[in-house]
Amino acid sequence: MIVVMRPGCAQKDVAHVSEELERHGYTVKPIIGVEKSIVCAVGGEEHKNIDFLEQLRAFDGVEDVLLITKPYKFVARETRPERSVVNVGGVLVGGNEVVMMAGPCTVESEEQVMETAAAVAGAGAKILRGGAFKPSTSPYSFQGMGKTGLEILREAGRRYDLRVVTEVMDPRKVEMVAAYADVLQVGARNMQNYDLLREVGQSRTPVLLKRGLSAKYEELLLAAEYIATGGNEAIMLCERGIRTFETHTRNTLDIGAVPVLRGLSHLPVVVDPSQGTGKRDLVSALSMAAVAAGADSLIIEVHPNPDAALKDGPQSLTIQGYLDMVPNLARIAEAVGRTMAVGSLV
Amino acid sequence: MIVVMRPGCAQKDVAHVSEELERHGYTVKPIIGVEKSIVCAVGGEEHKNIDFLEQLRAFDGVEDVLLITKPYKFVARETRPERSVVNVGGVLVGGNEVVMMAGPCTVESEEQVMETAAAVAGAGAKILRGGAFKPSTSPYSFQGMGKTGLEILREAGRRYDLRVVTEVMDPRKVEMVAAYADVLQVGARNMQNYDLLREVGQSRTPVLLKRGLSAKYEELLLAAEYIATGGNEAIMLCERGIRTFETHTRNTLDIGAVPVLRGLSHLPVVVDPSQGTGKRDLVSALSMAAVAAGADSLIIEVHPNPDAALKDGPQSLTIQGYLDMVPNLARIAEAVGRTMAVGSLV
Amino acid sequence: MIVVMRPGCAQKDVAHVSEELERHGYTVKPIIGVEKSIVCAVGGEEHKNIDFLEQLRAFDGVEDVLLITKPYKFVARETRPERSVVNVGGVLVGGNEVVMMAGPCTVESEEQVMETAAAVAGAGAKILRGGAFKPSTSPYSFQGMGKTGLEILREAGRRYDLRVVTEVMDPRKVEMVAAYADVLQVGARNMQNYDLLREVGQSRTPVLLKRGLSAKYEELLLAAEYIATGGNEAIMLCERGIRTFETHTRNTLDIGAVPVLRGLSHLPVVVDPSQGTGKRDLVSALSMAAVAAGADSLIIEVHPNPDAALKDGPQSLTIQGYLDMVPNLARIAEAVGRTMAVGSLV
Amino acid sequence: MIVVMRPGCAQKDVAHVSEELERHGYTVKPIIGVEKSIVCAVGGEEHKNIDFLEQLRAFDGVEDVLLITKPYKFVARETRPERSVVNVGGVLVGGNEVVMMAGPCTVESEEQVMETAAAVAGAGAKILRGGAFKPSTSPYSFQGMGKTGLEILREAGRRYDLRVVTEVMDPRKVEMVAAYADVLQVGARNMQNYDLLREVGQSRTPVLLKRGLSAKYEELLLAAEYIATGGNEAIMLCERGIRTFETHTRNTLDIGAVPVLRGLSHLPVVVDPSQGTGKRDLVSALSMAAVAAGADSLIIEVHPNPDAALKDGPQSLTIQGYLDMVPNLARIAEAVGRTMAVGSLV
Repeated sequence: MIVVMRPGCAQKDVAHVSEELERHGYTVKPIIGVEKSIVCAVGGEEHKNIDFLEQLRAFDGVEDVLLITKPYKFVARETRPERSVVNVGGVLVGGNEVVMMAGPCTVESEEQVMETAAAVAGAGAKILRGGAFKPSTSPYSFQGMGKTGLEILREAGRRYDLRVVTEVMDPRKVEMVAAYADVLQVGARNMQNYDLLREVGQSRTPVLLKRGLSAKYEELLLAAEYIATGGNEAIMLCERGIRTFETHTRNTLDIGAVPVLRGLSHLPVVVDPSQGTGKRDLVSALSMAAVAAGADSLIIEVHPNPDAALKDGPQSLTIQGYLDMVPNLARIAEAVGRTMAVGSLV
Repeated sequence: MIVVMRPGCAQKDVAHVSEELERHGYTVKPIIGVEKSIVCAVGGEEHKNIDFLEQLRAFDGVEDVLLITKPYKFVARETRPERSVVNVGGVLVGGNEVVMMAGPCTVESEEQVMETAAAVAGAGAKILRGGAFKPSTSPYSFQGMGKTGLEILREAGRRYDLRVVTEVMDPRKVEMVAAYADVLQVGARNMQNYDLLREVGQSRTPVLLKRGLSAKYEELLLAAEYIATGGNEAIMLCERGIRTFETHTRNTLDIGAVPVLRGLSHLPVVVDPSQGTGKRDLVSALSMAAVAAGADSLIIEVHPNPDAALKDGPQSLTIQGYLDMVPNLARIAEAVGRTMAVGSLV
Repeated sequence: MIVVMRPGCAQKDVAHVSEELERHGYTVKPIIGVEKSIVCAVGGEEHKNIDFLEQLRAFDGVEDVLLITKPYKFVARETRPERSVVNVGGVLVGGNEVVMMAGPCTVESEEQVMETAAAVAGAGAKILRGGAFKPSTSPYSFQGMGKTGLEILREAGRRYDLRVVTEVMDPRKVEMVAAYADVLQVGARNMQNYDLLREVGQSRTPVLLKRGLSAKYEELLLAAEYIATGGNEAIMLCERGIRTFETHTRNTLDIGAVPVLRGLSHLPVVVDPSQGTGKRDLVSALSMAAVAAGADSLIIEVHPNPDAALKDGPQSLTIQGYLDMVPNLARIAEAVGRTMAVGSLV
Repeated sequence: MIVVMRPGCAQKDVAHVSEELERHGYTVKPIIGVEKSIVCAVGGEEHKNIDFLEQLRAFDGVEDVLLITKPYKFVARETRPERSVVNVGGVLVGGNEVVMMAGPCTVESEEQVMETAAAVAGAGAKILRGGAFKPSTSPYSFQGMGKTGLEILREAGRRYDLRVVTEVMDPRKVEMVAAYADVLQVGARNMQNYDLLREVGQSRTPVLLKRGLSAKYEELLLAAEYIATGGNEAIMLCERGIRTFETHTRNTLDIGAVPVLRGLSHLPVVVDPSQGTGKRDLVSALSMAAVAAGADSLIIEVHPNPDAALKDGPQSLTIQGYLDMVPNLARIAEAVGRTMAVGSLV
């Protein structure tokens, strides 16, 4: 790391910084300039010295501390040069196939889930999405069907040979949700819910970790690192839109996250264009963009009757809309040298 | 609410929207314009129809749905015209006195807490802050002393006649933390952790609810509504800086939140200039600004030796820095017609 | 428009609002609710009443004013259902072909421009980009070669049959730049430089209008409306990245802008992935994403020797990098049913 | 500066970077670490090497380049330790007195300006604000009275002994506006309109430079540097709200900008709470906050009849509202050890 000293700081301040760095295992070279002095330190394990680094900022004479290595390790690409493939009950995410996850925003009834599951499975999707526990901005909103919802998802998965991804919000329910789901989704609002991250880190069920609304890439990767240090390395990163000043769309889907995260980490990258935009009309164009940019998987909201949906109807594709989109996506996948299953319905 | 129809939508779409609105208890007036038609609906309880409202957006022919009433109720100023005063073990937050909360970012040792508590109590603070469970971006960071930390805080509170505010992150620990604390802090990262909100809503301990990094005022108020609907109305709202494009400061402290939140809600408003800026040099100026803008309370990080602090040293005032600031704050409080205790040390 | 009145406002306030709306040509229906009253107004030309609408917000008893029609007209899709095709000296932007614009960030020498122009023309690009007048954050930065730069671009265009796009920053220079350029670029920093917009609106040279760093879609379209009301309707909208909290990339390229802008307007949409990310490694993935999302054209920075570039070397592709990317883009273009020229060099 | 090399970069890359740095006048120390190497360079004038620094980022093997000195010089506090006082025709901005600038958003009539000027002068304001050339998001909005507006402002200034501040948008009109105004305002939308900055830099009339909607502090200071390098050092920096995700207010007024800018620069800092919030009800609280935070001056919109205002009525104080606010501000000014003129009307 580099410690930049304030102009005109005392010689003893430079010495104090240097000593403390050495005490933490760094090799130190102070460089005294006319205007500014800097202390360069190499060799320490910076991700393990993150608190010390913060302390340094409070030392007398210190103007700034600059990290030169990444604060995460397990999830860093440097740690594992080949790409990780997450095995979701035999479905491989992160390999050559672009895997489709699709289903309703929220489980509302057995009928709704079965109809959707049949359709998306018929169109080549491998993983069924659906919310049984729903994070709702308002306490007056529907909060999900809970355990009954999980049972419906499980049964739909069994019937149509789909794996199931569903959100868990409460650390007390991780074990219960994992009994029904093939993938535990950690939602955007809970990306920095550390007790939840630690709990899913203890699980052996794969995790879909969604980027928080205002989370930097590095923070997303550090959240993944929480899970990985717990022992669960089957993590998929998910870009689902960030909060910006633009209000026309619910969020701004950051397609650039796909190549960036694939550059920084070996973990597979999933894109959620439904949450990302909040508008059905944009889902198809942004799904194609995501695949073109290198996404390993998409997660799409589909509803047999969006205008009766209890949640997120405006951003849900109809079943027909989904069936129409899949062949277009498959053509993009092919154009970038990947495959996508299209199923017999398409 | 107002439902704006797409240009050229079918007459039956307008009729469908109108019927559904009536079915939900609204009085409906469709207005057919040359370019656009709109359906005006009054009389329903919009905060209870929040899901229906979302559904409407997915109806055929609907372009937009505009709310004309607030989606929260208990915490709205309209509900309770006089300001709420939260009684924290006899200390009143939201009355004429501007109450100071101060203490270390993180509990590190009994000595550190006692020294700080003695000083801030001597300078008129009524509530001791200190973290025993710490939300840390990195899993390699210190995560707090846990229960031992709570015991130290409790003892410091007893010794120096200070109430205690400390963060709870895990819904499983609400009861335990409430056994030690006078105020349960819900941190910015957990503002939309709904299981936690529900749990503190069941408690009868006052809550300090911090605004999320990218939370709109309305979302903060809806988070408070979660707590209030659980039965706990002793809620203090806390502005602690939002995430913007500016990187010079850790966050951008939104002083405008003070008059806005006091206009929208009857709940007291607290400001955290330490987290809000991340820079010690800015704390004093922004504390003064917060009091001038009408804040009911400030929460300030103070450390006897910031360059040895395990967390957030750069934003912690020294004890002397805190003692120097208090009389300046008291002068501002007086200038706006309020009081502030300064203590015998100042 | 909808005027939402404050709860408990006086009857005369509703009457005053209604009268003023009628005086401005609206048909008015006030709706008196138990909690709130609203005044609905249809039939007026809202884009021409934009100041009046602002005034209304200041009327006694008014809580909010909600627009239900768009504030722009010429550039709105409703005005012209078929898509606009901008004719740039015979090159059609907005048709079935995805047109490539490429070249150096900044004109540095004749040699540099000629080498780049030869390569990009050989790879199918139709329009040469290059800055002669450069907007630089620092006054100590290179400000461009000025008129000499324009001459070099002109000559390169002539020699390699490329049209030329270059930025104009100063309203006094519009005529001069138009004498050399086939497209006048209005840069992101000048998107709301209204004297410049008016001046290019007087020109008959096509305009590439870049979205400001923090401009909403509507503001971009209103800036285009300035140009169109001046009489120049040959406008291309350009997404080039917006400013967000993320600092890993220079900007966040908003690929969603492509389908959104194509939905709101009939104007062609261009994407600039070089400025949008500031990182060469991301240009290819985001170029593919942009084409997949429906972009009509891309504008790409290419430099024969990026590490000697005076400006923006880190985001410039090498010539080889550009040649490698084009066939990938052409495959995506084909996958979405469009064409792209690849040239003989590829 | 610090050049961070990529892990495993070639030795010749480090050598190349070092040589180029030496060629630019730096003293260079490469430090070869196990994981990463860095090249430290001190002694060069970094603000003059800003282009070279950008080039370095494109060099082979370079991962990042970190500046350790500021990119601006004239406006930096280091350059001039004492605070600058800008002399506006005898009115001193930046001294002990907090100077009030007040007046209508836009000049609409002689009567309106005279009535407002009489009132604000009577309440101690020293500088009259008012727009003759208005930057309007929509081309259908009122664009200002132009030269006639300037004449009205000039006459009002003469009659009530007020200096005049008004916006100039067009570099062609700087001289003309300066013939009428005592302060040239560069608006937020034009903060990076470099031709305009250069032109006002040639003027000898003081400049009020408003922060752009999404401008970082450093960018604001670099814009000021453009003016200063032109020879005009009579610059006042103005915080007027930034664009964030929050939509309840027009902008988010960044009160923290006051202590930050006063820390980074010797120039006086002005705050505009009217533009900053867009809501009249918030102006008083944020004006008080700004003075408490150390603002040298406030600029406030006042209109004799806001609901007939052509522009920005919702954010304009009435004359009575202004008169009511001034004594409150004066009390805050006194509490922070400064003075404020209150006039005979208050």
